[in-house]
Amino acid sequence: MDSLEKRIAKEGRVLPGNVLKVDSFLNHQIDPFLCMDMGKELARIFSDVHIDRVLTVEASGIAIGLAAAYALQVPLVFAKKRKSLLMTDEVYTAPVYSYTKKETNTISVLTQFLPAGENVLIVDDFLANGEASLGLASLVEQAGSRVAGIGIAVDKAFQNGHERILKAGYRLESLAVITSLEGGRVTFQEGHEC
Amino acid sequence: MDSLEKRIAKEGRVLPGNVLKVDSFLNHQIDPFLCMDMGKELARIFSDVHIDRVLTVEASGIAIGLAAAYALQVPLVFAKKRKSLLMTDEVYTAPVYSYTKKETNTISVLTQFLPAGENVLIVDDFLANGEASLGLASLVEQAGSRVAGIGIAVDKAFQNGHERILKAGYRLESLAVITSLEGGRVTFQEGHEC
Repeated sequence: MDSLEKRIAKEGRVLPGNVLKVDSFLNHQIDPFLCMDMGKELARIFSDVHIDRVLTVEASGIAIGLAAAYALQVPLVFAKKRKSLLMTDEVYTAPVYSYTKKETNTISVLTQFLPAGENVLIVDDFLANGEASLGLASLVEQAGSRVAGIGIAVDKAFQNGHERILKAGYRLESLAVITSLEGGRVTFQEGHEC
Repeated sequence: MDSLEKRIAKEGRVLPGNVLKVDSFLNHQIDPFLCMDMGKELARIFSDVHIDRVLTVEASGIAIGLAAAYALQVPLVFAKKRKSLLMTDEVYTAPVYSYTKKETNTISVLTQFLPAGENVLIVDDFLANGEASLGLASLVEQAGSRVAGIGIAVDKAFQNGHERILKAGYRLESLAVITSLEGGRVTFQEGHEC
């Protein structure tokens, strides 16, 4: 997605440890127009399949998840990273390790918000090691539903999440695919036309 | 806001301890159309003042914050509930006590995303004891900016947040004002026309 790649090239900051900061428009400050456009683009890319619901994980997946759900005209559900004292009902859970925060969170969704027999689109802002996406896919499958695909804003394809998702047999569509952050430069996948 | 009140009346569940669960459309599963409509309504209500930016707090404020920012055509910033290992830059912080989770979180925003001299609209999904809204207001004022107002989806006005915010001199606009949950019934403020 050209507008996203341009924005990453302009405002993204590369930090040591293959960290790409895009917090000026994606996950701390958010450009609502770019965000809604990303949702529309994901809806366009997945327009060949039926989608019943969008699933993401709090917190930074919520904005692009809402944008995608709005464009697809389906409900959004966001998994929680820890149980609230209010979540006394039945939940599906999956472990998700965060390399950034160096801890494992148990993500959960109330079973009533992941009905069986649906096609669920998983959406997230970043793909690095694939932990969050694979955890969300586990929730969908525990529910007896099907992962229609995984839609990502920024895919750090040089880390192992990209390959893990493809190897697991999921359809992966990323709006910006980054093949390297070497030397502090952001390199996008050649010929990527999403 | 009529459509929100109707949805609360239909799907809201009252639990012991003055808890109102609206997680089927507001803060776990999200109805994207209602959410975007709430954003439009907040933009309409605050159309008499200039707004430079919308500020909310993760996680459940992000959806309505995005909707409001999109309608107002300004950036959204969401405060984080804990510092990421990536947040090494300068931050504004404020303590926020959660009665639900029975713990104090330090919310924070990178100083670069709260410039001085702006009019900032604070938006959140729920108002109960006012801790989050007052914490966000503190961040705005630390930044040398002005709180243009506080826009809330569901205002549990029988708790003390409503009064605390008005006493502190802020303009409060709530899309649904609930005056009681006694007996498991949701009572809305009479004559409320937002």
